[in-house]
Order: sequence, then C-alpha cells, then structure tokens
Amino acid sequence: MLSASSLYAAIDLGSNSFHMLVVREVAGGIQTVARIKRKVRLAAGLDSDSHLSDEAMARGWHCLRLFSEQLQDIPPTQIRVVATATLRLAANAGAFLQTAQHILGCPVNVISGEEEARLIYQGVAHTTGGPDKRLVVDIGGGSTELVTGSGSQTTSLFSLPMGCVTWLERYFADRHLGKVNFEQAERAARDMIRPVANSLCEQGWQVCVGASGTVQALQEIMMAQGMDEHITLSKLQQLRQRAIQCGKLEELEIEGLTLERALVFPSGLSILIAIFNELNISSMTLAGGALREGLVYGMLHLPVDRDIRSRTLRTIQRRFAIDADQADRVRQLAESFARQVGESWKLDERCRELLDSASQIHEIGLSIDFKQAPQHAAYLIRHLDLPGFTPAQKKLIATLLKNQANSIDLALLSQQNAVPPRMAERLCRLLRLAIIFASRRRDNTLPAIKLDADEDNLSVTLPDGWLEAHPLRAELLEQECHWQSYAHWCLTIT
Amino acid sequence: MLSASSLYAAIDLGSNSFHMLVVREVAGGIQTVARIKRKVRLAAGLDSDSHLSDEAMARGWHCLRLFSEQLQDIPPTQIRVVATATLRLAANAGAFLQTAQHILGCPVNVISGEEEARLIYQGVAHTTGGPDKRLVVDIGGGSTELVTGSGSQTTSLFSLPMGCVTWLERYFADRHLGKVNFEQAERAARDMIRPVANSLCEQGWQVCVGASGTVQALQEIMMAQGMDEHITLSKLQQLRQRAIQCGKLEELEIEGLTLERALVFPSGLSILIAIFNELNISSMTLAGGALREGLVYGMLHLPVDRDIRSRTLRTIQRRFAIDADQADRVRQLAESFARQVGESWKLDERCRELLDSASQIHEIGLSIDFKQAPQHAAYLIRHLDLPGFTPAQKKLIATLLKNQANSIDLALLSQQNAVPPRMAERLCRLLRLAIIFASRRRDNTLPAIKLDADEDNLSVTLPDGWLEAHPLRAELLEQECHWQSYAHWCLTIT
Repeated sequence: MLSASSLYAAIDLGSNSFHMLVVREVAGGIQTVARIKRKVRLAAGLDSDSHLSDEAMARGWHCLRLFSEQLQDIPPTQIRVVATATLRLAANAGAFLQTAQHILGCPVNVISGEEEARLIYQGVAHTTGGPDKRLVVDIGGGSTELVTGSGSQTTSLFSLPMGCVTWLERYFADRHLGKVNFEQAERAARDMIRPVANSLCEQGWQVCVGASGTVQALQEIMMAQGMDEHITLSKLQQLRQRAIQCGKLEELEIEGLTLERALVFPSGLSILIAIFNELNISSMTLAGGALREGLVYGMLHLPVDRDIRSRTLRTIQRRFAIDADQADRVRQLAESFARQVGESWKLDERCRELLDSASQIHEIGLSIDFKQAPQHAAYLIRHLDLPGFTPAQKKLIATLLKNQANSIDLALLSQQNAVPPRMAERLCRLLRLAIIFASRRRDNTLPAIKLDADEDNLSVTLPDGWLEAHPLRAELLEQECHWQSYAHWCLTIT
Repeated sequence: MLSASSLYAAIDLGSNSFHMLVVREVAGGIQTVARIKRKVRLAAGLDSDSHLSDEAMARGWHCLRLFSEQLQDIPPTQIRVVATATLRLAANAGAFLQTAQHILGCPVNVISGEEEARLIYQGVAHTTGGPDKRLVVDIGGGSTELVTGSGSQTTSLFSLPMGCVTWLERYFADRHLGKVNFEQAERAARDMIRPVANSLCEQGWQVCVGASGTVQALQEIMMAQGMDEHITLSKLQQLRQRAIQCGKLEELEIEGLTLERALVFPSGLSILIAIFNELNISSMTLAGGALREGLVYGMLHLPVDRDIRSRTLRTIQRRFAIDADQADRVRQLAESFARQVGESWKLDERCRELLDSASQIHEIGLSIDFKQAPQHAAYLIRHLDLPGFTPAQKKLIATLLKNQANSIDLALLSQQNAVPPRMAERLCRLLRLAIIFASRRRDNTLPAIKLDADEDNLSVTLPDGWLEAHPLRAELLEQECHWQSYAHWCLTIT
C-alpha cells in the first residue's frame, strides 16, 4: 500500500501564518494527510526599515522545527517551500532563510508576486469548476493577487502590495470602524488597482473566483444567513454598513463571522469592495484552493481538466466503487426527464448540471451500507472535498441524495442555497423518478416515458400494460405518489 | 466498472417472510445492492392436512413477481432460490413450486432441514468472528436449526420442527403471556431438543452464536437498556418475567423491542430458554449472517478465513485506501503499550484484540476528509457492515476512533457495551499515544518508550533529550497531557 514516498508536502511562509499541507495521491485525486498552521505573524516583526526583528525570526524558526519533524520522511523532490510578501520585503531575509533552510533541510523559494499569482491561479484551476475563462482574486496578509486565465493558462497576472494585515495596520489602527476608515481604505485600494484594471479587463472573464480568507469568511456569513453563495457588491456594501454600525473592531459581530476571522475582516472587505468597483465585478464565488494547492498539483503533474467537476465525479466513482453503468443510466434518464419538463419548470443550465452530477454519484451511500444509504450519501457528500463544486453546490447535491428515496425532507431542500428551493424540489422529483425507473440495472429495458409538468403537477405517461407487466416498479411508483403527496406535490402515473 | 453480471442474488422462501438479497463483490467483500422482504405468511395458509391454501399461494406468487423483475438481469448461475419448512411440509408444494419457478425463471430448491442448517452455518462462519469451534442456533418461523462446527466444517447438524411462528400458534394462541404459557412452550421445546442434545454436546464449542430474529431482538433490547452484548440465561429469565408482567401479547412492552418483532418474541424467547437449559449454554452472541449469507458466500467461493476479522480489516483498508504501513506502525506500538501496562490495567485478550482492530483502521476517516477525520471514522465504523465484529464491538471501535485525537468524550466511552467503561478508557489512552508517537509515518524512528500504569496514572518515560529533538511530538504530547487531564486522567511524560 502507500508509503512515505507517496507523500507530498507544500509549505507556505506567509506574512501572517505559516502553513504546511501534506497530501497523498489516491485514485487520481489528492487526500490530505496532515495540515498544520501557525500564526507566526512575521509581518508584525517588520520595522519601518523593513528589518525583521529577532523575535519574529525566532517565532518563524520555532514553527519550522515543528514542520521539519514531519517533513524529513518525504522525498525532497516532493516538497515545495515558498515564502511570500514579508520575506520578499525584509532587508535581512537572507539571515532568516539560511537558518530556515538548515532547519527544513530543503530550499526555501522566496517567490515573486507574479510567481505567487501564477501558483494561486493553478491552485484555483485545479479545484474550481465552472467556465474556463476566469478572474482570480486572492487577498493575502501582505499582498493581493489578481490573475486572469483560461483553462490552465494565465493571461495576465498582478501582485499588489496591499493585504488585509497591512490595510488593518494602516487604516484601522485606531480599531475604529468608522465610515471614514472604510472610505480611506477603499480609496487607497482603488488607487492600487486602477493602474492594472485595464490589462485585466481586456482579457475579460466569464466567472470571478475569490481564494482568500476574506472570501471564505463571506461564504460562511452568507451560508449562516441563508443567502445564496454569490458575492455581489450590494451584499458587500450591506456588510460594510453593518460593520460601521458595530462601531469598533472589538465589537464587530456579524452572524456567521468567526472570532478568528473578525480582526482582518473589515480591512479585507474594504479591499474587496475596491476590487469589485474598479474591475466592475458582478458576482464572485469561493475558490476550492489557492497557493498550497497550486504547489501540490504542480508536483503531482495532474492535468487541468477542461471540466474539473467531471474529474472529481470520476474519482469519487472509483474511490467508492460506485456502479458507473448504473449511475449513467440514472443520469441519462434524469437528463431526458429534465429536457421534457425543462421549459415549463424553468430548469436552467446550472440546475441541469447539478442534477447530472447528483445522478452520477447517487449510489455512493451503498459504499457504507444499504440500510440508510441515502443518509450515508448525504453525509459523504457534505464532508468530502469535491474539487470543482462550491460549498453551496455540495450542500444541494447532498440534499438531493438524502432525498433520493423514501420520505422527503422539504426543510432540507429549502435550507440549501445553490438554487431556489422550488428548483431544488423539482430536481429532487426528477432524480427520484429516474432512480425508480432505472432500478433494474440494465440497459434497453425502459419504455417510452413521457413527462408533463404544470406548476407542481407532474404526470408520467407509460405505454399500455407496462405497469401490469412490471409489478415491482408499479409498486415503487405507487409508493412514490404517496411520498410526493406528503410533500404536497402532485404526481400522477398513467 | 461493475455491471449486472457481477451481481449475485439469494432468495429464501421462508415460512413467515420471503427475502431477496442482491449483492456485488467489492474488494474481496460483499456489498448489498438491494434487499426486499415481504411478509407472505405462507405457514398461516397451511391447514391441518398440510394443504397450502390458494390465497397463501397467490400471496407467494405476487411476491415472486416483484422479485423476478429485479432478478432477470442477473446471470442464472449467480442466483440461488431456496424454500424451507412450510414448503417442505406442504402436501401440494408441487403446484406452488411449478408456478413459482415459471415466474422466477430459475429453479427453486426445497432444501432439507440439514441442508438449511449447513447453509446457516456457512453464513455464520463467513460473518462471525471469535474462536473456531462454535455452536450455531437459528430459530426460524417453522424450524429451529442447531449446528456445531469448526472453521468452515460442520460437525453435527439438526433441524427441529419448531419455530417462533408455530410455537406462537401452539402455546400463545390465546394471546396470554401467562406463566403457564411459557412453561408449556418451554417444556415442549425441551422435549424437542433433548434427543439431539447429546450429539451436539459431544462435539462441544468454544463459542455460541445465535442467528435468528429472536437473538436480533435480544441484541436490540440489551443495547437499548445499556447491558453488555452477551445473552445469558439469567437475562432471558428476567425478560420472561417482564413479559409475564405485561400479561398480554398486545400489551407487551420492553425497552428496545420493536413492534415488528414483538408478536413472535415470547414464543422465540421460550424456545431460546429451552435451548440454553438443554444445552447448558453459558453465553451467546449475535451472528453476522445466516441462510442468505450462506447462499451468497457459497456462490462467491470466498474462503472461510480462520480469522474472519482479519479479512474484514484488510477489505476495509483496501476499500478506503487506508495507509496500511502506517496502520501497522500504530498497531505494533499500541500492542507494545498494552503489553507494558497489561498486567496493572488488567487488559484481557479481548481488549487487546479490539485495540489491535481499532489501530488497523484508525485512519479510515481520512478517506472522507482530514477535517474532523475522527468523527468521520466513527460514522463509517458505526454504519459499515463489518463481518466478524458484533454490534457492540463495532460501537466500541467507533468510540475509540472518535476519541483518537483532540478532546475526549467520556460519555461515549461509557455508552458502549463491549467492554467495561474503565477498559474502554484505557484502550483509548493507549491508542492516542500510539498515534502521536507514530505520527512521522516512518519505521525505525522511535525511541524506547517505557509505559507504567498505576490505576488511572499513566507515565511515559522517554530517553534523555528526545523531546527537545522532536518539538512537534513534544508539543503534541504536552497537549495530550491536557486533553487527558480534562478527562481526569493523569498522564506524565518524562
């Protein structure tokens, strides 16, 4: 089985924290084996002459000694260590690095802002679904990266010397969350972005992805408050308003914002608002990974799929020994159902893609046990890392799989925030029917099934005599009418 | 991937219910794909001339039509259909079987009581751990099988014409749960068993395993009431007393007894008490499978391992891509720790085996996600089918894995019923230490670790300077002392 030689490590010496990620390759995907993070706060040890204090260096070295204990067993070619903004800046970085390399027993690369931007883009490309042409935004502690690209190729990349830690110290040093603080912080950020805005906008993008702690915090806030997962300027402005109401950094309280993220949230928010304004961004979602993932995927030499979600679904099918033929039968059937009722039910492309994804892994729960398989499926999907799917999309798929058979939990369908609850209900109904009709696990045994939908009324028309000749599915369909009626959905089988 | 041709089906036409089990082979184990059960109540349609009524036959055929719809896609060589007691007895079984075979499209074997006993034994041998020499007891609706064997070989087998349905009709027909009813039922059962008792007792056994609904019900009752998983005569007698207090079958209420099982529980209980008395059984546990599992494993030609648990652990390691080398490192370390403190902590063989098993799969949670891996591990173990482990043992392993790192949940450790809570706590402490010391995932990097235990005080002695040279593990051990102290356990590292 797997040994130490199949492990890979990525270490990033950031301005605020040092991170170590240890992974191994499993079935074409990566599995995290260890993750260590230490708030070293290197940037805080930088004086006005860009001199790193002895104390800050000592904190850094202490952390690296911890990392090195785990690192020694991984082949050196499978380790990448990079340092970013603060060590780019520090006049005496050399002294720090010499000892650091001695402790780690491997080279530390102080990467340029552009290289950092490139790696972040790679990390995003390997872990984030959706259209090919994207803008990637990463607000770090000491720098902010802005990158456009298409597939695995970057088309423009910029690293700006502003971050949520530096902006905190510069514009919120008085711990005051005043209108003026935000205005100054935003203005300064816009001044930074303006010179590069044209180059980025010229490249254009179909989708905008955020990879930083600020965007992570926003995602958690929106999830907690039951909003959909798309970050928009108006949502950001509302949050700024809320922060101003709180008055002071110590009193900042927003539902879903954790204490750990609160300190640098206002400064990050001001930078993000500036980015939205200068680049005219309409909507942003959370990336699945960034710098460390870029380092790891780079070592593993996995290709960037055109469709990262397909790779994820295939990996999951393989890892959990899902019957792929059966999954495909259900997928095709669900797709045909969605096509038939697509117009009257207003199922857009996004809905249909998510139904497709859910179909492909709907039997994952069997890998745990036949009993309560739908519950197990939901548990797995909620907790598995699914590169290409956003947290909201994962939650929707988990919800659809939980409701794939037996009683229907309407509350769950309305608690997800990937699509409107009404749409989730409709996808659920189609998936359930597809599973029942495909239950024989065989190709070419299906009749012509005609679906008609009118509001919440769904009718299924089958050829004469089919139900009589197929008593098991007749029974399942009869039961299904009951389940759907308990959820106040009208299903008619004729 | 897997197609219909990798499916196997076992159908059993019992006196009370018809069952269909569809499985596929995954990584050397079986995975249930479908399970259908219908209460056909064939025995109830048998008149005093052993004539099966038309209505009973029609109920049976209707059920088989449901089964056949799923069955048609499985290769005939991978289907086994057997009929037991009622169809052995029915004078007009031929008429029923002809149509039944036509519906199913494959032969139905009316098996002899001895063949039924042999298959049950095989099902048990493939799914039940513990010592090799065993007595297997299966109380069915119309017959009771008693079998002794060693490994995969039966040494004596008997099928007696009494079951929980026939005994219900004969001794509890008035729905009364009187002392007299029980006495009569037990006396009749003892009369049945007495003639075969000698042959069985001559073969002898190290362990006694029960495979029927009655034993399943007892398991659920004991679990619900927080008792350990070993069925003893005194527990059975207490339950009989409780049933007599309830007075009537309709008013039978015992914590943990489901409505579905209640009707035939008193009759099954009386038979089991008779068996315990006649065969002088001291303790019985629940089997992992019986007739249908015997049919399925027979088709799959999987060998009966001497140690069924090892096979299960290997299968789980493979299916969930567990790092087997690392698992083995932790296992060896935990074993060495258990040896060192075994005497003062009174760790018996059973405790050490369970610690060994837990070590081998402790990283299973990583297959879901690094974050909350211990919680995921517990979820998986609680719900996975683990042939060879009893429900109580599964619960203990799940509990140990949940508590393998971070904070300790003492309540969980005392809720399991496989070993005394005190023992579970001790196993937990040893596993946690083994995981910390082995965290480098490398052989030969361990110092001589000396453990001493005195009641709840555990001290770990390390060579001079080891902690200073290994700051990560020093940190983990320091944290571990805190975690253990929160649980009121004293851990000293020197």
